[in-house]
Amino acid sequence: MTVIYKKVALIGLGLIAGSIAHAIRRAGLAETISGYARSAETRDIAREIGLCDVVCDTAAEAVKDADLVILAVPVGAMATVAQEIGPHLKAGATLSDVGSVKASVIKNVAPFVPEGVHFIPAHPLAGTEHSGPRSGFAELFDNRWCILVPVEDSDNNALVDLRKFWEALGANVEIMDAQHHDLVLAVTSHAPHLIAYTMVGVADDLRRVTDKEVINFSAAGFRDFTRIAASDPTMWRDVFLNNKEATLEILGRFTEELFDLQRAIRGGDGDYLHNYFTRTRAIRRGIIDAGQDTDAPNFGRDLTKES
Amino acid sequence: MTVIYKKVALIGLGLIAGSIAHAIRRAGLAETISGYARSAETRDIAREIGLCDVVCDTAAEAVKDADLVILAVPVGAMATVAQEIGPHLKAGATLSDVGSVKASVIKNVAPFVPEGVHFIPAHPLAGTEHSGPRSGFAELFDNRWCILVPVEDSDNNALVDLRKFWEALGANVEIMDAQHHDLVLAVTSHAPHLIAYTMVGVADDLRRVTDKEVINFSAAGFRDFTRIAASDPTMWRDVFLNNKEATLEILGRFTEELFDLQRAIRGGDGDYLHNYFTRTRAIRRGIIDAGQDTDAPNFGRDLTKES
Repeated sequence: MTVIYKKVALIGLGLIAGSIAHAIRRAGLAETISGYARSAETRDIAREIGLCDVVCDTAAEAVKDADLVILAVPVGAMATVAQEIGPHLKAGATLSDVGSVKASVIKNVAPFVPEGVHFIPAHPLAGTEHSGPRSGFAELFDNRWCILVPVEDSDNNALVDLRKFWEALGANVEIMDAQHHDLVLAVTSHAPHLIAYTMVGVADDLRRVTDKEVINFSAAGFRDFTRIAASDPTMWRDVFLNNKEATLEILGRFTEELFDLQRAIRGGDGDYLHNYFTRTRAIRRGIIDAGQDTDAPNFGRDLTKES
Repeated sequence: MTVIYKKVALIGLGLIAGSIAHAIRRAGLAETISGYARSAETRDIAREIGLCDVVCDTAAEAVKDADLVILAVPVGAMATVAQEIGPHLKAGATLSDVGSVKASVIKNVAPFVPEGVHFIPAHPLAGTEHSGPRSGFAELFDNRWCILVPVEDSDNNALVDLRKFWEALGANVEIMDAQHHDLVLAVTSHAPHLIAYTMVGVADDLRRVTDKEVINFSAAGFRDFTRIAASDPTMWRDVFLNNKEATLEILGRFTEELFDLQRAIRGGDGDYLHNYFTRTRAIRRGIIDAGQDTDAPNFGRDLTKES
């Protein structure tokens, strides 16, 4: 593998940055990886497990001389970090991020990007319900999509390099504009997450059904929701606050549709329900055919072990 | 293993009945398994793969001399099947089922149970998004829960045997009354399924986001919903029509809660969102500790293969 960026700086050392570090090493894409996290505890863990070549105590120090800087902090923290590192970015460097929302990140980060630095926002569509510096792994991006969202004056060579970098991390790359990205993600990720959080919250509130029952008898459906609803609270708070319009629009449509289905249940309209459920089955098939999920029953998870 | 029932008859030969057949053989719980399915094609496949010792062309024939008869048909088909087999049930036999709703099954089946036959409804909380006679496997019930819902005059010895039977199939057994069962399941399974169906339907409707994008970029959240929304349409239509009140009640609470969260997003109340998401994370932990799900990231599914 060829080194694409001599020095890569990772700001934020959670699941995504950790996985980037592992995947950079797997492919030999950089000579040095520097890292910074706001929390001293996270920095200590990162040092202990050797997540980066060097873990710095300030973001400014971490980005010094870096050819690629990746902001891997919650979307709500992007502006602060950008302001902090802006003056320390090397001329000709590429500044990117991994935020789940793109329009707000562009709005909040772009003002702090100095002349001569290439700002190319990005969003790898990969993650798990785990978080923190120990949760990353090199395979996280394999065969997943990474969406690059160039801004108006993004340099083409810098874009080509960043695409090569993400492909070498294992991802498929797609280019999209920020507005469209935020709508697509509202449908495929943000609204579903809010819905999952809501359903798990409802179950938690229900006093007639005890907690133990909710937990024991969560075999179907709910159990999958709890995985989604176990995702990092800070990250998701920021996603919703920063992709407000698109998320609320999709949730509005969702509620309308849910009311239709509730009416069908109340009125006993079995044909309506059956047709609806048949249609949704086809989408699943498409996702499996596109290699974006496994066809193994229950995701192939292993639950046969005694607890 | 000891034979608990000399002859077991399975009415309906889909995922659940197929898995029961495989698990019976794994544990040596019966001398003969007979089976019946309404569809000739299903019966042919069942014969071809040797799912039962004998596949009959009528339900009446299949239940003849059976010591345990299990109705494994959609909840909406239970009454018809019960009426058909009622006169052919052996005195002293146990009649059970695997329906996801219990009050309506009891209402619809009990009138056709002859004197001297022990009617003990049951519901194994296990399944996958696949269906049909080829989808069953012996491990489906391992470490899952099976809820037994004895009716007023259920014979205690018959109950003890049925419990032993399900435990020998690999399940943990719990006793519950029908109303409570239907509420618990509305929370942990029925409402989540309807919500997943709805969200997938919304995505399907959205024309600005193309189908291909919904499919490609379904990495997080939505992808898990599509698995749930790929479940058998007939089974789920019947579940909703037969657990109407409890499902609509939970969906009503869900909508109230969703509106609260939408308001928090609109008003930018980050603390409310963060607290909510922190609380739901704890429930996930409980489910993993109870052995009802895997802690492996993304359920441990393998997506690294090229499509």
